Amino acid sequence: MNVSIIGTTGYGGAELLRILHRHPEFNIQSIHSTKEDLPIWMEYPHLYEIIDDHLQSIDPAKIAKQSDIVFLATPSGISGKLASEFASENIKVIDLSGDLRLPAETYQQWYKNEPVHPAISEKAVYGLSEWHKEEIKSANLIANPGCYPTAALLSLAPVVQENLIDPNSIIIDAKSGVSGAGRSLNRTTSFSEANENFRAYKVNEHQHIPEIEKQLLRWNEEIHPITFTTHLLPISRGIMTTSYVQLKEAYQTSQLLDLYKETYKDNSFIRIRPENNYPSVKEVAGSNYCDIGLHADTRTGRLTIISCIDNLMKGAAGQAIQNANIMCGLNETTGLDFIPLYP
Amino acid sequence: MNVSIIGTTGYGGAELLRILHRHPEFNIQSIHSTKEDLPIWMEYPHLYEIIDDHLQSIDPAKIAKQSDIVFLATPSGISGKLASEFASENIKVIDLSGDLRLPAETYQQWYKNEPVHPAISEKAVYGLSEWHKEEIKSANLIANPGCYPTAALLSLAPVVQENLIDPNSIIIDAKSGVSGAGRSLNRTTSFSEANENFRAYKVNEHQHIPEIEKQLLRWNEEIHPITFTTHLLPISRGIMTTSYVQLKEAYQTSQLLDLYKETYKDNSFIRIRPENNYPSVKEVAGSNYCDIGLHADTRTGRLTIISCIDNLMKGAAGQAIQNANIMCGLNETTGLDFIPLYP
Amino acid sequence: MNVSIIGTTGYGGAELLRILHRHPEFNIQSIHSTKEDLPIWMEYPHLYEIIDDHLQSIDPAKIAKQSDIVFLATPSGISGKLASEFASENIKVIDLSGDLRLPAETYQQWYKNEPVHPAISEKAVYGLSEWHKEEIKSANLIANPGCYPTAALLSLAPVVQENLIDPNSIIIDAKSGVSGAGRSLNRTTSFSEANENFRAYKVNEHQHIPEIEKQLLRWNEEIHPITFTTHLLPISRGIMTTSYVQLKEAYQTSQLLDLYKETYKDNSFIRIRPENNYPSVKEVAGSNYCDIGLHADTRTGRLTIISCIDNLMKGAAGQAIQNANIMCGLNETTGLDFIPLYP
Amino acid sequence: MNVSIIGTTGYGGAELLRILHRHPEFNIQSIHSTKEDLPIWMEYPHLYEIIDDHLQSIDPAKIAKQSDIVFLATPSGISGKLASEFASENIKVIDLSGDLRLPAETYQQWYKNEPVHPAISEKAVYGLSEWHKEEIKSANLIANPGCYPTAALLSLAPVVQENLIDPNSIIIDAKSGVSGAGRSLNRTTSFSEANENFRAYKVNEHQHIPEIEKQLLRWNEEIHPITFTTHLLPISRGIMTTSYVQLKEAYQTSQLLDLYKETYKDNSFIRIRPENNYPSVKEVAGSNYCDIGLHADTRTGRLTIISCIDNLMKGAAGQAIQNANIMCGLNETTGLDFIPLYP
Repeated sequence: MNVSIIGTTGYGGAELLRILHRHPEFNIQSIHSTKEDLPIWMEYPHLYEIIDDHLQSIDPAKIAKQSDIVFLATPSGISGKLASEFASENIKVIDLSGDLRLPAETYQQWYKNEPVHPAISEKAVYGLSEWHKEEIKSANLIANPGCYPTAALLSLAPVVQENLIDPNSIIIDAKSGVSGAGRSLNRTTSFSEANENFRAYKVNEHQHIPEIEKQLLRWNEEIHPITFTTHLLPISRGIMTTSYVQLKEAYQTSQLLDLYKETYKDNSFIRIRPENNYPSVKEVAGSNYCDIGLHADTRTGRLTIISCIDNLMKGAAGQAIQNANIMCGLNETTGLDFIPLYP
Repeated sequence: MNVSIIGTTGYGGAELLRILHRHPEFNIQSIHSTKEDLPIWMEYPHLYEIIDDHLQSIDPAKIAKQSDIVFLATPSGISGKLASEFASENIKVIDLSGDLRLPAETYQQWYKNEPVHPAISEKAVYGLSEWHKEEIKSANLIANPGCYPTAALLSLAPVVQENLIDPNSIIIDAKSGVSGAGRSLNRTTSFSEANENFRAYKVNEHQHIPEIEKQLLRWNEEIHPITFTTHLLPISRGIMTTSYVQLKEAYQTSQLLDLYKETYKDNSFIRIRPENNYPSVKEVAGSNYCDIGLHADTRTGRLTIISCIDNLMKGAAGQAIQNANIMCGLNETTGLDFIPLYP
Repeated sequence: MNVSIIGTTGYGGAELLRILHRHPEFNIQSIHSTKEDLPIWMEYPHLYEIIDDHLQSIDPAKIAKQSDIVFLATPSGISGKLASEFASENIKVIDLSGDLRLPAETYQQWYKNEPVHPAISEKAVYGLSEWHKEEIKSANLIANPGCYPTAALLSLAPVVQENLIDPNSIIIDAKSGVSGAGRSLNRTTSFSEANENFRAYKVNEHQHIPEIEKQLLRWNEEIHPITFTTHLLPISRGIMTTSYVQLKEAYQTSQLLDLYKETYKDNSFIRIRPENNYPSVKEVAGSNYCDIGLHADTRTGRLTIISCIDNLMKGAAGQAIQNANIMCGLNETTGLDFIPLYP
Repeated sequence: MNVSIIGTTGYGGAELLRILHRHPEFNIQSIHSTKEDLPIWMEYPHLYEIIDDHLQSIDPAKIAKQSDIVFLATPSGISGKLASEFASENIKVIDLSGDLRLPAETYQQWYKNEPVHPAISEKAVYGLSEWHKEEIKSANLIANPGCYPTAALLSLAPVVQENLIDPNSIIIDAKSGVSGAGRSLNRTTSFSEANENFRAYKVNEHQHIPEIEKQLLRWNEEIHPITFTTHLLPISRGIMTTSYVQLKEAYQTSQLLDLYKETYKDNSFIRIRPENNYPSVKEVAGSNYCDIGLHADTRTGRLTIISCIDNLMKGAAGQAIQNANIMCGLNETTGLDFIPLYP
């Protein structure tokens, strides 16, 4: 299968290259960017003498002709337009941006961008791999999930689907490494400001809120609006969501762990930790794992759920390749057997 | 006033030295540790040629004779015993450990240590400076608050006291820099394991839970048990608590900010941030400030409260000196005019 | 004394504010920037409720009228022009940039900027405080030394002046924290690129090379061109220079330490470490100290010299205030009694 | 091929597991440690559900029977004893410690440990893969090089072998991430002390000095003792050596780059950077690359050589596997196709 990447110079694009270069079934056909002609190693010297490709201009018609799969690693606002251009082509498209994840009105409200035409966005399958395998298999257009939603949704799914919680009690306290903000420069993500620091941002205003709520409602239509806070961690990679929900009944931690293990038993990227063991972000770094730990507090009747992913892997490029694998009828883990890099 | 420090080689002790060395009214009389005879700069080379004192053995009777104030920067389990030995002396004692903060039974349950005799602990005033000034003024024994409780309580006080929240809705998601774990060695706080990492620990089991609840109940007897999660940040100093409470009525953020500003208007170490502005931990580093930001979410009716302190300053040594100032009738800010070190 | 700062929004300007706010003899008269009217706390929230000043436009005539001392914390290329405008005024000017440190031709070659008129630059005294006190006392214009030159020169001075080394053997391997690059944004200093990284830059091409050589030649005219490499450390503050020189004779480390201690015995900001003890950058963080450690290797006849400063303090704002103190006849340590912030 | 690891709980052991788990020709037969019976994931949760093995006791006879290759990831002092026990067995042994790298007397002097019997150490081939391929092919016992020596030697080899430099001019300024110090606990490598810090250690006393000199002398018998300084970087992984040598003649950087490229043209793990491009440690993180950049300074006649490796990969486990590949007649890159993890 020939694959092309558009928007290769961002961190999502670079991570796609890291995976695709050793993927046994996918061949990097071409890489694209507005910085055309530049060899990719000049943007990313770690790829020197590994990937010799030069960046090419973004010509959708030409790309469609040469490729079986296209990854859009372009920013929100750009991706949607490109997806529209590829819509009539016989090609699989996976969009890593937020452009295809929401209904038009909601998108406009939270992203402050012009939405894509509903004819396009309604065709897009939400690529939360563990939950939509059948749909992904037959899709031509994937809205790859956001990094925060991936961590949060995978860890909330069992209790939401089984209706075990007060539907008006979901609070998600989320923390992300700085690479989640992309490679463009701004003060908050400059080293001297982010280092030895920790800050909350977009409090109750993050554009991933409607994405999470949309999926929760798909699972359980009683779910109320959620509380969601994002914080910037002084690390390059990694997301943790610490979620709080009120249990309807007094479950033991072990009972809930059993439910989680059963739910995800056929999903090798989801690791449910044993009781009294909680994942840390470094324990999934560089890999496609989502690690989950639970604690049901008998004092309060609340459940605390810890979920960790690498935001560039399971939160972006890794899940995108997982979706491409599923779309192509491959084992979903193909080319994704990265062991976390520790320490 | 002559002051002595016991347990000088921990981070709390070192921070006391940093403050006391330039305090205009307090004189460092002697410093004590089990590592007697060692010059303090050999433990802390940053003090070389600044503080020439050698560590002395811990002889309570002798210390009491020479000192007006004693700071106990010793670990839980040790501090309580020392406080008991000083109890009959005419000397002011400020204990930075958790030994005097809880009733005996609760202490034993959460700390797994032998509690001090109630005759001692009941004499101790809980030194949350902004709220117990009158009691502190006349106290001889101070239970200096824990780092997490200081950040959490100062930021919850106005809405708890004014009874604006559902008493069964308090969730505190807390994050601390590594110095909060002290200077003793363990794997979790070794560089290679903590760096580029973020982990939750003691989920629903942290010994600061009963300390927070005790004070909340003092303010509002309807308060239910809280949910409290602690996480380890890959930074040396700093604590943030992100707290979530359900508002009883639909308040605007600005109304609540007005309440907070009014509440703390005479307290120069509490800085209430303007609307849409949230503190980060680096913005208080090295200082005695507690910075607070708020957001009331109209979608959910919940209030998100961000609170930042330097765990070694307002969360330990800084507040201890603030309490000593109050005990001695000084302005509470004396010797504590540190501007945050940024960047 | 009324002091004004021009270029207040950079890290050097912010550090001047941190020092000046509690300086007993200097009063912050006004702060200036191209971002006029903005309250400084909006640029630096750590100053919220501490420094209420608003930034003002840069009007040299007006500033000169109101101020006794002006600090130029402006970038190279701007500072020189401002210094020229203040030249005819009866005011003390301290320039933290590189504009006044070099002869015109050398400046143009290394900085690629238009040099200031020699009539100005020749009036400027090189403010290496420990070595030029008499000149500084009577100067009206100070070229405040660069951060790397300060660390390197203070640590090389004794052996260069005493002519103990092969004049063609000076190699300086320098490492700096990221704040040394200033507050403007670029990819190399963004968090995701600088974190968990270490890189060499401007190898043999750094503009501080001629500044170091000029001063070394002033001390010892036989000195040859030096080798100087700069590296970017993943920390916010701190510089270490590791310097290598060939000793002419076989000295013991202890003999050289005696020389260093004697040389700097009246300089309280220079701390010569005992044998087998070497400074680390964190041991001077936030302070005006320059800490020096030595090791003479009997196997090679070479001397290794370790020197640490805080690049924003002794390497910029701290030394600038030290120079201002000297110019005003104050004790050089006035307002600079910061104990390093550790850990 | 069945391989076993002794000393699996250190960082070198964990990194061997990361590589071996997906190595196409090597099978992890058993893992050994003094912590017998523990499942490895309890020591390293990032391996949870990936590697299910339990640690086994260290029984050399039994291990020899079951294995074709044994990796000794044990500390210096232990490794040598184990190597001796395996010496009479028909098994390939690769020792990652320093026990087999030096003559007995030199070893004792620098390591302060009892040396192994010369009959053992003299059989060991120094496994600097790029330079000793033929010897390694036929060896049964490999002394795997130290991390610093690997970075330094690979980058000095061409100019030392070609005799282009003053043999009495080699100065190596080395910087390492904290994982190089291993997983045992000590204050210097605790987070609060190492973070936001940078320190020199073992100045002119590091045990890698004789290892580097031994190999340099093998290449060029005129080489004099070297100057070597080690520093601790606040990162988990990565080594940079910045080396300084005096060129005998006035070479251009480009001429020397040509020499380096020619020298290493058949070695895919050595990447010689183009002129004006220098490697950073993050650009090799998690991979087996050694990246080298050069600058010949016409002002001084000195050559500056920058060399970067991941200390746990090319500096330890990666090179060990590379050597095992060579010993087994495989392509040296087998199972080592890791692209650096960036950012």
